[in-house]
Amino acid sequence: MKKHNFGAGPGILPETVLQQAAAAVLNFNNTGLSILEISHRSKEFEAVMEHARTLVRELLNVPEGYEILFLHGGASTQFAMVPWNLLKTKAAYIETGVWANKAIKEAKMLGEVEVLASSSDKNFSYIPKGYKIPTDVDYLHITSNNTIYGSEMHSFPECPVPLVCDMSSDIFSRPVDVSKFGLIYAGAQKNMGPAGATLVIVKKELLGKTGRKISSMLDYQVHIDGESMYNTPPAYAVYVCMLTLEWLKNLGGVSAIDKLNQEKADYFYNALDRMPAFRGTIAKEDRSRMNACFLLNDSSKEEAFLQKAKEAGIVGIIGHRLSGGFRASLYNALPLESVKVLVDVMGTMC
Amino acid sequence: MKKHNFGAGPGILPETVLQQAAAAVLNFNNTGLSILEISHRSKEFEAVMEHARTLVRELLNVPEGYEILFLHGGASTQFAMVPWNLLKTKAAYIETGVWANKAIKEAKMLGEVEVLASSSDKNFSYIPKGYKIPTDVDYLHITSNNTIYGSEMHSFPECPVPLVCDMSSDIFSRPVDVSKFGLIYAGAQKNMGPAGATLVIVKKELLGKTGRKISSMLDYQVHIDGESMYNTPPAYAVYVCMLTLEWLKNLGGVSAIDKLNQEKADYFYNALDRMPAFRGTIAKEDRSRMNACFLLNDSSKEEAFLQKAKEAGIVGIIGHRLSGGFRASLYNALPLESVKVLVDVMGTMC
Repeated sequence: MKKHNFGAGPGILPETVLQQAAAAVLNFNNTGLSILEISHRSKEFEAVMEHARTLVRELLNVPEGYEILFLHGGASTQFAMVPWNLLKTKAAYIETGVWANKAIKEAKMLGEVEVLASSSDKNFSYIPKGYKIPTDVDYLHITSNNTIYGSEMHSFPECPVPLVCDMSSDIFSRPVDVSKFGLIYAGAQKNMGPAGATLVIVKKELLGKTGRKISSMLDYQVHIDGESMYNTPPAYAVYVCMLTLEWLKNLGGVSAIDKLNQEKADYFYNALDRMPAFRGTIAKEDRSRMNACFLLNDSSKEEAFLQKAKEAGIVGIIGHRLSGGFRASLYNALPLESVKVLVDVMGTMC
Repeated sequence: MKKHNFGAGPGILPETVLQQAAAAVLNFNNTGLSILEISHRSKEFEAVMEHARTLVRELLNVPEGYEILFLHGGASTQFAMVPWNLLKTKAAYIETGVWANKAIKEAKMLGEVEVLASSSDKNFSYIPKGYKIPTDVDYLHITSNNTIYGSEMHSFPECPVPLVCDMSSDIFSRPVDVSKFGLIYAGAQKNMGPAGATLVIVKKELLGKTGRKISSMLDYQVHIDGESMYNTPPAYAVYVCMLTLEWLKNLGGVSAIDKLNQEKADYFYNALDRMPAFRGTIAKEDRSRMNACFLLNDSSKEEAFLQKAKEAGIVGIIGHRLSGGFRASLYNALPLESVKVLVDVMGTMC
């Protein structure tokens, strides 16, 4: 039976990408070798890394002066790398959920942290707005999309200091003006590829200013100097990112996927708001297009709903334990058809 | 044409592993989903992580009191994590090549480093011996096999302080008495799997003694508490490690592969020593069974040799630029048949 994969991440990847990714495990580019067993210094793999970085530059229209890196370690490593590289004395953070919190915790080990705004008062069910950004901080850190709670920043603050953004769960889902950011990072395993690779887009002029000695693997400049291959990269994960970005480019890029994502989100949330048996958990204006969190008003029916969903081939809609209920992740590769199947099942509960 | 993959890493993996690895990209364990797009918190993936760790414990006979972790970041990250977690004031290192050097550099950022012995005087062509290990250091760091130069420690020092070993390029190639070590680490991409995962075996009682605040992703205790899933792990790389370790177990484990590796190394080095056109670069008693480095006495014939090798399907024998000449990596998955093909081609040069 066809599966409808609503998992929050590692999340759904395009079928054609999976086919190419499987074929390369057996025979990569007619080398007679697996992509898993070729040297990262071979011309074939160097071309993969270079093409992946070029696709990022093209798809997000990354301006001159920014470097594009594929690193190990996930966004969790970025929570530390950002302050290691950019925090001289004080940084500002917006607290919009678990991941923002973890980023704050890492920054506090290295300097002063000012939490400018938080939505913790209402279980992170909205995006704080109207805060004033001080000019004496080294950067402002935000989380564009909160995978666990299902909120998303639909616009970004005008920022007088470098803006650092964790875009792990909505990068490549919409156009972004990279020039407004000092640094963008994203774990690959939502819209970009499998777990194991992490994208960093960093404005070079921000680096080298803390005077801090940094362990090499945490030092952006080391990775820039190594052209994203300071050490053996997570080669297969980068390869599958490259395939996924190629798929996105062939589809028409981020403006095309933006429309499709809007269509899916509209279809889902319109249905949700129509159905008296369900309710959303996030302030309407801040609802995520990537992770739609919702509850059954009668929680005694949860098991029955999950059973029906399972019978329809739906996978991965149990909500995170911190938000409860359900979560439908609507990442780039999820077809509208899957959303329709989910909405149909929801309809049977009303 | 069948390829004979002598690449130094990412290196050759068993054919059956590649077939299983490719199949799981399309449909993992009959879930109807790709291994690349399933949650790391799913029971299916948790079983993978658990099985991989259990296989390490079984194959290396890891005693109680040691934790087994699969982490991001490669051995290069371990160069930093080791001193972050274990270096209070002073550590001792043995300098046997480029990787040992990089480890020394990272440690020096965090404390005093005493280089007890070095083979840099002879381009790292031997393993230093006869050094005295002080008792006032927090640990002694060694590199069991030097991938670039092709030397290997065939025995380990009796060590009055915790012994830390980078086993990236010879782990699982032979039995090791883990109880003699405080910490063992290894990038996966030689004998264990693809690039992107790193194995750490650490004696728990050594941790928590530096008083240092450690960024979470660099803190072994954080990963132990998270059961090797503090953050989304490099899932596919761990999966392929699991498959490779299963393959090794089915083959008879490390004592069985030890015999096969000895047979391959003997076949190669005996041939090398018989052939007047070639010479080895490493002191005979320290020659690596994993990476055999050698030169053509008449370097003008190098191109001709590489051309013949290529025609025979041989891949990856160009030496590292620091050691020159040729390097044949004889990792676990390389069959004796490939060594015979290489030796035959070498024979035509004599």
